[in-house]
Amino acid sequence: MMDAFTQPALLDDLANVLGPKGLTTDVADIAPWLTDWRGRYHGAALAMVSPANTAELAEIVRLAARTGTPIVPQGGNSGMVGGATPDVRGTALLLSTRRMNAIRSIDAQAGAVVAEAGVVLQTLHEAVAAQGMRFPLTLGGKGSATVGGLVSTNAGGTQVLRHGTMRALVEGIEAVLPDGSIYEGLVTLKKDNRGYDLKHLLIGAEGTLGIVTAATLKLVPALIDRVVVWAGVESPLVARQLLLMLEARAGREMEGFEIVPQRCLTNVLRHVPGTRAPLAAPCPWHVLIEFARDTPSAQAPEDFAQTLMADAFERGLLLDAAISTSESQADAFWKLRDSISEAERAEGPAMQHDISVPVAAMAQFIIDAGAAVEARFPGTQAAAFGHMGDGNVHFHVTAPKGADGRLWSNGPGKEISAFVHDLVVAAGGSISAEHGIGQMKRDELARLSDPARIMAMQAIKRGLDPKGIMNPGKLIAL
Amino acid sequence: MMDAFTQPALLDDLANVLGPKGLTTDVADIAPWLTDWRGRYHGAALAMVSPANTAELAEIVRLAARTGTPIVPQGGNSGMVGGATPDVRGTALLLSTRRMNAIRSIDAQAGAVVAEAGVVLQTLHEAVAAQGMRFPLTLGGKGSATVGGLVSTNAGGTQVLRHGTMRALVEGIEAVLPDGSIYEGLVTLKKDNRGYDLKHLLIGAEGTLGIVTAATLKLVPALIDRVVVWAGVESPLVARQLLLMLEARAGREMEGFEIVPQRCLTNVLRHVPGTRAPLAAPCPWHVLIEFARDTPSAQAPEDFAQTLMADAFERGLLLDAAISTSESQADAFWKLRDSISEAERAEGPAMQHDISVPVAAMAQFIIDAGAAVEARFPGTQAAAFGHMGDGNVHFHVTAPKGADGRLWSNGPGKEISAFVHDLVVAAGGSISAEHGIGQMKRDELARLSDPARIMAMQAIKRGLDPKGIMNPGKLIAL
Repeated sequence: MMDAFTQPALLDDLANVLGPKGLTTDVADIAPWLTDWRGRYHGAALAMVSPANTAELAEIVRLAARTGTPIVPQGGNSGMVGGATPDVRGTALLLSTRRMNAIRSIDAQAGAVVAEAGVVLQTLHEAVAAQGMRFPLTLGGKGSATVGGLVSTNAGGTQVLRHGTMRALVEGIEAVLPDGSIYEGLVTLKKDNRGYDLKHLLIGAEGTLGIVTAATLKLVPALIDRVVVWAGVESPLVARQLLLMLEARAGREMEGFEIVPQRCLTNVLRHVPGTRAPLAAPCPWHVLIEFARDTPSAQAPEDFAQTLMADAFERGLLLDAAISTSESQADAFWKLRDSISEAERAEGPAMQHDISVPVAAMAQFIIDAGAAVEARFPGTQAAAFGHMGDGNVHFHVTAPKGADGRLWSNGPGKEISAFVHDLVVAAGGSISAEHGIGQMKRDELARLSDPARIMAMQAIKRGLDPKGIMNPGKLIAL
Repeated sequence: MMDAFTQPALLDDLANVLGPKGLTTDVADIAPWLTDWRGRYHGAALAMVSPANTAELAEIVRLAARTGTPIVPQGGNSGMVGGATPDVRGTALLLSTRRMNAIRSIDAQAGAVVAEAGVVLQTLHEAVAAQGMRFPLTLGGKGSATVGGLVSTNAGGTQVLRHGTMRALVEGIEAVLPDGSIYEGLVTLKKDNRGYDLKHLLIGAEGTLGIVTAATLKLVPALIDRVVVWAGVESPLVARQLLLMLEARAGREMEGFEIVPQRCLTNVLRHVPGTRAPLAAPCPWHVLIEFARDTPSAQAPEDFAQTLMADAFERGLLLDAAISTSESQADAFWKLRDSISEAERAEGPAMQHDISVPVAAMAQFIIDAGAAVEARFPGTQAAAFGHMGDGNVHFHVTAPKGADGRLWSNGPGKEISAFVHDLVVAAGGSISAEHGIGQMKRDELARLSDPARIMAMQAIKRGLDPKGIMNPGKLIAL
């Protein structure tokens, strides 16, 4: 372990490996990266290291392994669970991947891009679009989220219904393991049965088993057209019927199916400038549906959507619907959806829960869990919105009027979260659908997992990282 | 570890847990299961245990863990690499899953079946077909291969091009871990980021990290129609061009694309009764293409295939083609393909290699590697056939005329295999595309893997199975 003698020697060694661009101990330079973007977690670091390439990164890990120095990897620092924020002891190296931002290759014929960990998602989108291709995963933080972070948290987003999470899009991986060795797995093989799947083990491991330095990612053809529908529905159960009907009729052309309660829409219209109601009158619930096509069709996308919506209306599944007739209108519908979190924050303190249950059970879960929470905690309001097509909603519970945000969040709020998580587990669901565990949900994961899962995760962690230097304190306690 | 005192106590304890149906020490009863189906590996066992359910299986593992007794799980005993055959010491329990053969549920709407480890693939096919659904993975050994073995070896087969290997079809898993605890992961969640992915770790682990006891498997709609094309082509490079053209034109309706050299076809026609040449004249190479549809189409499948083949002929990609006009003709074409291994065995001794390289590189690899082997080892003949659409072929090298099978296989044959594997690694490929590692390729894997991969696999194995009782000696040496 590090002591007063090894620490200066380590910093000297790092300086030799990284040069001035790759190492800083300046407190003011490091400070912005020691707090997560939501301002909920604060840490300290011995130094910030920013390797220029995989070889430098591997050397950092070797030096850290030798001295028992913790390493906290960080991409865009846009995570939701404090997974990239060090603890407060100040003994860790904060490892930024921002300088490793090369797109090594784009192969349009094979449908693959090799991107380094520090490539920002938006940059990736633009680079492959220039080759007539699309990387189909996208999310609100695309301007800051990086490939390394997206892989390490198995990010989801709004297009999972058709294209899956990162796990479905990562075809190969390069990573530095906890002893500083480099796992070279970027070559894409459709069939490969050479033992344990290290790629899938590192995806979603949140940097606790190694650091992803580059990934081969699947590309799909660029979109030819898309159309976005905003529809009012009577209840989540009817929304579920609509989803089933559209899955049968539109198949892979349906790329998103999001649910929004009227209350969330009202809050968006109240708090977010430049938004307007998509339908003539309020409805109990709303759904946003995106149809996207990458093969030519004789039928205009609006006509395709119009036919489906007319059928749905006739079957009694819709109250009203608006179909986008331009890209700007499609964007405006998505903006309503993407602004919900912001509007909810403006409305007052709330506990947020990123949860999933089996897709078929989600509609009833939304209704039952909302009623249960509001009955058990008088004055609160529950709202579920998001990726209903994936069985994943963001389940917000707002504080009673007049509650002090900080006091409420740390007191009754924690009790509410435990209550929500208990409901999720009882429904066979997950307390982290897409945001990961990090430091925020670590203890809840331990509380709510069956012992076999925790035992196995600890055994894997101990086996691969016996010194416990890789992002310690995140995901799993030892 | 086991000694003369613990062994009788263990057998008594097992008898108490399992009853007479679940435990046998009768040498004659056990003997058939101590040799792999190809007769290449022979072992011994202390007893054969056949638990009736997951709870019994877990109790066996707990007793084995307590006494340090090795466990070798076995499904249909139809593996290709000796992965289910114990070593010769006779200290292991041979654990058969055959009594755990319940299909727990079939949910046609959700497209999922929950099947126990001992369910035979053919039985699974029939059970889901009765509900109007299809489990799309199939392979030659479907009459004996079991769900547990298919999951544990990440089996492939002939429909991987469209549906992927087992890894793409397993949605949930139940397994007994090396300490006897039960990992319950059968519930299917589309999004779940609760840490390390134990499902993917157990898929393809060949029973060395735990025993898969049941799996939730993905179903697809039953086929409406299919058509099989047998086409003659000039070379693997032209076959590759044909594959690219058909991928662009037929998309997901193409379910198989297999390559066959004329020599293999000639051997099939010579050795396998009831086969006849599919084309009027010999061609240098052949491809078998299957188009399968699960949505209604106005166009007859033969017409669909006819149009595509006419276009391919015009572009100079085909020499000749026959299109199946009945199910029996489709079966007859597949029989030619499926009989190649049998015909090759009848022809004489050969070394077989189950290899993959990146799909785009396979055509040239077939040509170059075949020439290199025949030049380096005079008198041998190389033949590559199989799943070209997946970048996976079975690469056979036959002995010079008059060679003694056993002597040649253990001498020059081994040198040839090492030579082939070196070529595969140089091409960025895998020495096990779909058959796994078992005991047959364990040392080759260690020889040809980068140290980081081996280190990581050993660390995972030691972490999860510290006593080394789970299928020891397979996949990875400690």
